Amino acid sequence: MAEEKKKTRTTVDIYGQTYTIVGTETSSHIRSVAAMVDRKMREIQSFNSYLDTKQLAVLTAVNIMNEYLKSKEELEKLQEKIKDEDT
Amino acid sequence: MAEEKKKTRTTVDIYGQTYTIVGTETSSHIRSVAAMVDRKMREIQSFNSYLDTKQLAVLTAVNIMNEYLKSKEELEKLQEKIKDEDT
Repeated sequence: MAEEKKKTRTTVDIYGQTYTIVGTETSSHIRSVAAMVDRKMREIQSFNSYLDTKQLAVLTAVNIMNEYLKSKEELEKLQEKIKDEDT
Repeated sequence: MAEEKKKTRTTVDIYGQTYTIVGTETSSHIRSVAAMVDRKMREIQSFNSYLDTKQLAVLTAVNIMNEYLKSKEELEKLQEKIKDEDT
């Protein structure tokens, strides 16, 4: 972001626990990110009901990291393609 | 992937605990994803030493989700741009 990076403190609820998240993102953005993590944890839990919350959170992180890497790879490919077309 | 989607079972170690991950990705991919999550957890822990492992894992998931959304947004913008140029 180009504007001045003010720190925000946002309190969110994820999987029944309250977290205070400090960062430069807007509170509304943080809340939406937290809601997505909460949803993903519940989704993974529904297929793996034997997991404790710690294991569930770690596997949720693995799941999101996997999606992130796929998206990043696709982005890099596209950026490469655009660069090739420009030269 | 275009090839037949075989299920793999991969055992990984994340933040001192063993997880068996079943999926259609290769074991080597899963291991690299797990290593990135492990690294991210340790990085976040170094700034927030008061967190227990469950809280740490949840905040790691939030952190990765945030990065993922940024990457996805950038990808969508680029795809939109390419679509506009093609028409």
